[in-house]
Amino acid sequence: MFQKIAQTQTPIIDPLALRWSGRAYDANRPVESEKRLALLEAARWAPSCFGYQPWRFLMWHRSEESQAWRRAFECLAESNQSWAGHAPLLMLACADTQFADGRPNRWCQYDTGAAVMSLSAQATALGLMVHQMGGFDAKKIRNEFAIPESFDCLAMITIGYQLPREQVPEELQERELAPRSRRELAESFFEGAWEQSAS
Amino acid sequence: MFQKIAQTQTPIIDPLALRWSGRAYDANRPVESEKRLALLEAARWAPSCFGYQPWRFLMWHRSEESQAWRRAFECLAESNQSWAGHAPLLMLACADTQFADGRPNRWCQYDTGAAVMSLSAQATALGLMVHQMGGFDAKKIRNEFAIPESFDCLAMITIGYQLPREQVPEELQERELAPRSRRELAESFFEGAWEQSAS
Repeated sequence: MFQKIAQTQTPIIDPLALRWSGRAYDANRPVESEKRLALLEAARWAPSCFGYQPWRFLMWHRSEESQAWRRAFECLAESNQSWAGHAPLLMLACADTQFADGRPNRWCQYDTGAAVMSLSAQATALGLMVHQMGGFDAKKIRNEFAIPESFDCLAMITIGYQLPREQVPEELQERELAPRSRRELAESFFEGAWEQSAS
Repeated sequence: MFQKIAQTQTPIIDPLALRWSGRAYDANRPVESEKRLALLEAARWAPSCFGYQPWRFLMWHRSEESQAWRRAFECLAESNQSWAGHAPLLMLACADTQFADGRPNRWCQYDTGAAVMSLSAQATALGLMVHQMGGFDAKKIRNEFAIPESFDCLAMITIGYQLPREQVPEELQERELAPRSRRELAESFFEGAWEQSAS
């Protein structure tokens, strides 16, 4: 396993610093059921507005070579299909756009993003790699799996173990080995007034 | 400091298991600048769609007793003002609703939720308590701080140290000491088909 640790001005915890969205999955190494359970528990205990927990997750196992996995996989954009098929676990994260009384929940996507971040941190701590994708056909997957209209299909997610560096396929090497980058802190974090850099 | 650890079927990492949204802040204990920096770095390195990092954070320090902090504080719902004034750090999380080319970014809230979850996990690891609030006047804070219309004002956030249990004010005790709860796993996590419980 190779790491691409976040470059920070002060240390942050490993489950965050070591998380990155790789593409080179080991197709021969399934996710142990105990670890999978830990991922779900991590997502489950994320915070949410009014404790409403708007997230719903739909999972498919590649190892079963199930029809269901295949139908889900085929909702991915072609560029993602080129590598995501090796991941043993495929997920879809959905957000319930309405509160129980039918009023819109403007925090449903925000809360669902938090749940997936929780899952990702837990996965990193367990040596697993998570890759979230916006590139999929949301309408198609809704139809395939009869997902109610009131749920927003937000991200498809691959989970599994990373390939050792020397086994990363040629066509993925450049992206897998490229350094990670982020905007400068001053461009995202303001103090006292909008666009005023934090001290 | 008192804990309300998440009740899980298998262990999850402490920064997630020990995170909870308390209200009883120690007004006399500021957040060290090094720790604050770690929180921002944690948020900064969250994943986002196309690496666009749609989040923006605006912060105010209570310790300065600044006009700016007061103006932000007054955007909170009254029910939140009753306790949030003791937290040394107040933040607003916003999401850039458009990509650079002006197209809408349907993942902007989702990604911003992930960034705040990252911040919260890091905060927990540093012994800090984070409480996110949807109860604030989004229109008022936009006007007060000239936040561009293209940004969605999603959550106000308090950060600080928790009061020792014996110092929790009478009126907060019931809520602070109540157990945390979540829906059953089977209600949020499906396998193969919608609403089919995960094995």
